Amino acid sequence: MENKHHKVLLISTGGTIEKTYDESDGSLENKRSVIMQKISDNIRLPYTELELEVILSKDSLYMTDQDRQMICDYLQNRLKENLPIVVLHGTDTMEITARYCFERIKSLKVPVIFTGAMVPLEFGKTDAVQNVTEALLAVKLVKPGFYISFHNELFEVPCVRKNKDNRTFESYTADAK
Amino acid sequence: MENKHHKVLLISTGGTIEKTYDESDGSLENKRSVIMQKISDNIRLPYTELELEVILSKDSLYMTDQDRQMICDYLQNRLKENLPIVVLHGTDTMEITARYCFERIKSLKVPVIFTGAMVPLEFGKTDAVQNVTEALLAVKLVKPGFYISFHNELFEVPCVRKNKDNRTFESYTADAK
Amino acid sequence: MENKHHKVLLISTGGTIEKTYDESDGSLENKRSVIMQKISDNIRLPYTELELEVILSKDSLYMTDQDRQMICDYLQNRLKENLPIVVLHGTDTMEITARYCFERIKSLKVPVIFTGAMVPLEFGKTDAVQNVTEALLAVKLVKPGFYISFHNELFEVPCVRKNKDNRTFESYTADAK
Amino acid sequence: MENKHHKVLLISTGGTIEKTYDESDGSLENKRSVIMQKISDNIRLPYTELELEVILSKDSLYMTDQDRQMICDYLQNRLKENLPIVVLHGTDTMEITARYCFERIKSLKVPVIFTGAMVPLEFGKTDAVQNVTEALLAVKLVKPGFYISFHNELFEVPCVRKNKDNRTFESYTADAK
Repeated sequence: MENKHHKVLLISTGGTIEKTYDESDGSLENKRSVIMQKISDNIRLPYTELELEVILSKDSLYMTDQDRQMICDYLQNRLKENLPIVVLHGTDTMEITARYCFERIKSLKVPVIFTGAMVPLEFGKTDAVQNVTEALLAVKLVKPGFYISFHNELFEVPCVRKNKDNRTFESYTADAK
Repeated sequence: MENKHHKVLLISTGGTIEKTYDESDGSLENKRSVIMQKISDNIRLPYTELELEVILSKDSLYMTDQDRQMICDYLQNRLKENLPIVVLHGTDTMEITARYCFERIKSLKVPVIFTGAMVPLEFGKTDAVQNVTEALLAVKLVKPGFYISFHNELFEVPCVRKNKDNRTFESYTADAK
Repeated sequence: MENKHHKVLLISTGGTIEKTYDESDGSLENKRSVIMQKISDNIRLPYTELELEVILSKDSLYMTDQDRQMICDYLQNRLKENLPIVVLHGTDTMEITARYCFERIKSLKVPVIFTGAMVPLEFGKTDAVQNVTEALLAVKLVKPGFYISFHNELFEVPCVRKNKDNRTFESYTADAK
Repeated sequence: MENKHHKVLLISTGGTIEKTYDESDGSLENKRSVIMQKISDNIRLPYTELELEVILSKDSLYMTDQDRQMICDYLQNRLKENLPIVVLHGTDTMEITARYCFERIKSLKVPVIFTGAMVPLEFGKTDAVQNVTEALLAVKLVKPGFYISFHNELFEVPCVRKNKDNRTFESYTADAK
């Protein structure tokens, strides 16, 4: 049996994970996508073809519903190809965007997994590599649906939120939010 | 709803992943387990308690069926606790040990996932962190059974083997081996 | 002959080198000194005892002459101990502070070497380790005087300045400034 | 004044520093030179042009006087260009080769600095970057002569030797050897 080759669509909307440091002015901002080089340097993918699409370069704190609609439309369009999808997104409103899409996109045939990082990938102690590694594996293992993948946990949307105190994500019961 | 806390049993048998460099004689060998510090430094596990058990410190090229029986007995005993298990093992005979256990341990109630690395974890370009990260996530997602987790793929035992040319693992159909 | 043991005084005033990332608000700022752990993890010093003194935690863009006078007074006081000194400082006004001290402190009996980094030490691609490594070696090799050590060059104060375009330092002739 | 541009000749003879890991057989050996990529990734050299010459790829434990004569002849020849020289060499017999050259090459007009590493550069915790960084700076600062640069110390040849217990180098008085 030939080994199954996978194609995964990696969509970047920016977020902390993709913030880059600029030596000229000391800024740490979303300017361009840097995830592919990081993946290339750190994650072995012998049977996976990754296609990167950068649709936004924003700190999610500043995302509007207009941005979310754009992301949602983009997902809806790409989902026709039946490729599993990993979406990079800022952690501040990842749960909002994920929920927004969950409410508008029904009958998924593939997993759509949101992830990001608490620390930009350029940092030595980033959690970016862990989170992206896990999302890329999870997208091969789980049934169709919307998820957030973070710090070795896979959360089903919509009952997931950022836990600012613990600097990670958590699930909650619908009534307890 | 409280977030589910997991306990995972991490069993080390040595392997390339755990080989350490000795400055005094330039050797690269299995001497002691070094995985916990690497996990601690690289993988965030807010909801996972890891228990490490070092039962062997061997390059799997030199493993005997006696070693495999010991590993198998140890697994059988610990499986009474119903904890998901990740086993670190050398890549050269990982598929043999995994198969050995698969043939002797029936009615698993948890996943038992073998992993390791092509490059010792002390190297800058190690695949150890990726593989252990993935195994720790997979063990939360998949149904009971024996698996090998490697380079962003999860393979069901027994139809999995090392691909020496491509320096990774692959699945195969039973008759094609 | 016993190997000469050195004691070096490491004075931190903050600067880009010491900026730390805060996950809770995404800020990158001078909050506390983090240099000792970085040195401990990256630079072997079998014959050198380092004493760290954190006298300021400032981005040098915001330094005032009052700050510089404080640094200068502190140096003048510690110089009584005849220990070679390395000063961590932001790159934006390192040359101003170094010159300020050069003009006020005469008859040095030890080298006083300023250094810092273009990229905070928490980043994977930081130049912090290189610069501090070099300053710690230079302070053992050169004659008494004020210097800036940066990117494998040692510059005598006062004719040194930051080159913003090339993101490094350079020397210049007095009349050409 | 224009900034002085330096050209430095980097000669590799192999040694622990240049040992590379081979996934196919688990070996750690001197096969080819890997130093330039490591320097490129870790050391900023805005004013330095490095020319690498790989003249040997040997663990210095196995070096013969024939090898040393070859190294010595090569140095003698290249010294006509009056470029400062850094020589990468295994630590086991670095002092022997350095002394061998010291005894045969007189009237140096440039520094010739030997260095290497206790841990191969491919390891996360290598001392290779520190040692090469220091040698590249020292070669700009010191007077002509033969030296060993190691772990933030510069030792004049011939009274320097490896200290195996402390896993570093040390100087000694001629009669005390």
